[in-house]
Amino acid sequence: MVTQEIDTPVIPRYLEILSKEVKIALQVQHRILLESRKTLNFLDFKEFLAPVVGPATDPGIKGAKQISFDYYGKSYKVMSSIILYKQALIRTFDNIYAFSPNVRIEPISNKKSTRHLCEFYQLDLEMRDKSIHDVMSKTEFFLVTLFKKVKRACNQLFEELERDFIVPQIPFPVLTYSEFFDIAQSMDYTISYGEEIPWEVEEELSKKMVEPFWIVDYPVGSRGFYYKENPEQPGTLLTMDLIYPEGFGEASSGGERETDVRKIKQLLHSTEENISNYKWYLDMLSVDGQPSAGLGIGIERLTRYMLGYEDIGNCTAFPKKPGMFSI
Amino acid sequence: MVTQEIDTPVIPRYLEILSKEVKIALQVQHRILLESRKTLNFLDFKEFLAPVVGPATDPGIKGAKQISFDYYGKSYKVMSSIILYKQALIRTFDNIYAFSPNVRIEPISNKKSTRHLCEFYQLDLEMRDKSIHDVMSKTEFFLVTLFKKVKRACNQLFEELERDFIVPQIPFPVLTYSEFFDIAQSMDYTISYGEEIPWEVEEELSKKMVEPFWIVDYPVGSRGFYYKENPEQPGTLLTMDLIYPEGFGEASSGGERETDVRKIKQLLHSTEENISNYKWYLDMLSVDGQPSAGLGIGIERLTRYMLGYEDIGNCTAFPKKPGMFSI
Repeated sequence: MVTQEIDTPVIPRYLEILSKEVKIALQVQHRILLESRKTLNFLDFKEFLAPVVGPATDPGIKGAKQISFDYYGKSYKVMSSIILYKQALIRTFDNIYAFSPNVRIEPISNKKSTRHLCEFYQLDLEMRDKSIHDVMSKTEFFLVTLFKKVKRACNQLFEELERDFIVPQIPFPVLTYSEFFDIAQSMDYTISYGEEIPWEVEEELSKKMVEPFWIVDYPVGSRGFYYKENPEQPGTLLTMDLIYPEGFGEASSGGERETDVRKIKQLLHSTEENISNYKWYLDMLSVDGQPSAGLGIGIERLTRYMLGYEDIGNCTAFPKKPGMFSI
Repeated sequence: MVTQEIDTPVIPRYLEILSKEVKIALQVQHRILLESRKTLNFLDFKEFLAPVVGPATDPGIKGAKQISFDYYGKSYKVMSSIILYKQALIRTFDNIYAFSPNVRIEPISNKKSTRHLCEFYQLDLEMRDKSIHDVMSKTEFFLVTLFKKVKRACNQLFEELERDFIVPQIPFPVLTYSEFFDIAQSMDYTISYGEEIPWEVEEELSKKMVEPFWIVDYPVGSRGFYYKENPEQPGTLLTMDLIYPEGFGEASSGGERETDVRKIKQLLHSTEENISNYKWYLDMLSVDGQPSAGLGIGIERLTRYMLGYEDIGNCTAFPKKPGMFSI
């Protein structure tokens, strides 16, 4: 194994932040944040302040490290996802959202990645008593409205970049995991059914598309413990990923939530997680498990797609690039 | 010394979150977040995504503990304030803001406090080449607009609580630290000039007021290293605190920023901080120190004041009460 060292940026961020590229990105991002809220308010979503630390977060983050620390003698973590907290709050309102910060210390092997950050914001949506199909159609309406509004408001900035992106048609195309798997095999990738499809396949497919598209029905075992199995199609989960076209790849990931405590406990036992940290969550589901569905849309990746930028490091004010000593 | 233990909530948060009190608070907070953004956009402020972790944050948080962790072999912290980052970004735009999450593990002795949380959000504003007076008048306009809009939009909720708060007149009253100090002495508190005035004095004064008011001109040495000394009134800092009336106390704290690297280095040397963590910040000020002024308005405390609630624990979805095993 080759030991990789942490890098120091060649140009300090306090200088890079003055570049035309970053300045345009931040103006577009400002507009994304503003118009998102207006549209979500119109759609009757309530915004809440995302928790940043807590006794439990999403254990299902592949390869990346979480931050643990001592909180009055208890082991707490910095949120790598607020999924469990959305499930708690959705019991109070029909539709909720937060712009939630997530920290995941990516493996240093992701150093060259142009689409990973160790700290990023998600627009986290959750809808009570709804299916993935409800969430998909609400998300499509939301995104089309947002694309239109940002395009109009930032018209001059996009012209300066000579960038154009399509305002997609509703409904977006939908692919199943099986179809996606077949595409991977036709591209001569040796993978077993149920595995995560390699990024290269997603990228190739994404390059061929001109509009965002969904991938649904991931197989059981491929995702976090909080996803619900499809009772009408055992072996598949009620999940959906949204993929940007033009090679930009994953936009969002989500699904319907499992509320069966026994199933969740089983899955948690098969991980290395300390179940006592999930006590409140399991208690809540036992007392008052609330069916819901939702997803999270990465804001820096959304900004990157709209701008057509290669490097996600230009899509936020203070990017934490993997393996980099970032401010 | 009596050892104090961490408490477990009597009612689990996932049940408490369903209470009428919390539900109303979250609806009002939703409106605060929405109208804040609309008003700030109107005032030509650009929103950015606040960093959550980094090599340096504000060392000047009294008594509270910060979270340190290993980031690719370097010592990083969870933000307890994004002040240094606002100073970096203000070089790109005239006016910026973020809803920034801050984590400060409060001493367990604050367990009974009804106005402290270990995790809270600030509306962090910063203005380039402006004075505290510019920031104060912009903040007054912002708050009066926000108070009006939230009052109108959440009219029914406030009626349900039988709560009314005043939309204040502009300009707000201004007190100097010296005047505040004299009030403390007249109340028989034994304090030295330059010390922080006890909370009880602030509370008494706040109870007598019906509108928010400012306290300016804190003495040198009483605040963080990033505040500028008033060249026309040596010994005092260009700072301002905003205090809510009716006994609710501190709303906001801010000031003009020091850009003289030598002075900052001196002050940093007198703390226990590792100066190498501030390298980028000191480099930036050496190369391109940008005068600016700004402040931070605590969102949970703003919500608490508007609602007239005693306990700040009812003013956010997932409160981290000091000394409490909170989710």
